[in-house]
Amino acid sequence: MGSYFDIAKQAAVLKNIPAPEVEVIMQKSLIRSVERGASIYIQGEGAHSLFVVLKGWVKTYRVTPCGNEAVVGIFTENGCFGEEAALRDHSYVTGAEAVSDAMLLQIDGLYFAQAIESDLALCQAALSGSMDQNRALVQHVEQLKSHTGAQRIADFLLSLCKSQTGSCTVILPYDKVLIAAWLGMKPESLSRAFRRLKPYGVSIQKDHAIIESIERLSEYADEDPAESWSTQQRSETL
Amino acid sequence: MGSYFDIAKQAAVLKNIPAPEVEVIMQKSLIRSVERGASIYIQGEGAHSLFVVLKGWVKTYRVTPCGNEAVVGIFTENGCFGEEAALRDHSYVTGAEAVSDAMLLQIDGLYFAQAIESDLALCQAALSGSMDQNRALVQHVEQLKSHTGAQRIADFLLSLCKSQTGSCTVILPYDKVLIAAWLGMKPESLSRAFRRLKPYGVSIQKDHAIIESIERLSEYADEDPAESWSTQQRSETL
Repeated sequence: MGSYFDIAKQAAVLKNIPAPEVEVIMQKSLIRSVERGASIYIQGEGAHSLFVVLKGWVKTYRVTPCGNEAVVGIFTENGCFGEEAALRDHSYVTGAEAVSDAMLLQIDGLYFAQAIESDLALCQAALSGSMDQNRALVQHVEQLKSHTGAQRIADFLLSLCKSQTGSCTVILPYDKVLIAAWLGMKPESLSRAFRRLKPYGVSIQKDHAIIESIERLSEYADEDPAESWSTQQRSETL
Repeated sequence: MGSYFDIAKQAAVLKNIPAPEVEVIMQKSLIRSVERGASIYIQGEGAHSLFVVLKGWVKTYRVTPCGNEAVVGIFTENGCFGEEAALRDHSYVTGAEAVSDAMLLQIDGLYFAQAIESDLALCQAALSGSMDQNRALVQHVEQLKSHTGAQRIADFLLSLCKSQTGSCTVILPYDKVLIAAWLGMKPESLSRAFRRLKPYGVSIQKDHAIIESIERLSEYADEDPAESWSTQQRSETL
């Protein structure tokens, strides 16, 4: 299974499990190709499988009582979702949908739950994985509460950069409406926020973002939002 | 330990464990009284203990690089925090502080981690607890992304009501600055948002919120935010 194995091995629920056990799990799992826009599971459905992304992008989302959608997770290579299936009789907290053509490892939930019930190391690995997800969610809540929209975009662009210094061109991995939803913004605020990043050396050309200086953008992302607003207003009136 | 035992037994990390085991854990733990404003642990510190709230209120928070604080969790009776301590060599993702005088069950992390390493049922219970926390965080992210400020307050007030119908008076359990921080709003937006709830039968008197009709407020909380804004504007221009 070559490189798919290497990717799956890095997933939060599998990374603390010895390689031979991961191999067994993969042999008992499906590798599925899904098209962009395909529904993987829906919110409230009995959690039958957990998934690792091998290629492409997947979003998880909640449908609000009035029918709106809130994007609560975006996953790419080695990202893990649907862990509810690791415990018996759980249902999915979110829905999941492919946002690009994607390859997924689909691990049978019942098999995984049974394995956990008899294997302490696997259970600990799953616990560790679940705590990693917790940490990521806590950091996302922090970002939503403490950063301006433009700073959240700066964070998002920085997360796509491979290096920590210098200039960088990144490909925006999914459409702008989805980026806005993920960052908790309206699509029209996203365009405004992209413009606000211009003075900090960011330009957008179609689905590319060109970052002149990663250091400068990082500094901006970490600024006090109060300062960030006043700086913006200054630069906008200049 | 009487009623403290009953409260602790409901905590996410303990609720799936047989009562005699919970008793053993409690015997090996401290019951601590902390004053309002007391720091319980700080972000980045080695995770030495996990905690269950027995009485009072605790917040967990992240300090951003510029020194601002983002409240990421608020816990009361049987709420559990600091679960990072259930795994060896983890550090606290957040800081924790008492926001009222409080009583806490402080479970030694090393003891709990060792217990998990030899007890599959306990490990599964901790996994289940961690997934509960995940679910709560996902729901909070949903709320932050899909609801207006006034709707988030409506949700918050409804979460304090004991019944699902009729009228209700609730005591606001901590100060308004903290409520605003928790709901991802500025304190000044909170006052505006409270005023927006007036047409929906909510009035605030000091630290009390009087809700005329829980059904009416629930309906408002679940409305499409787009509709909610236009209704607000209509009612404001009337």
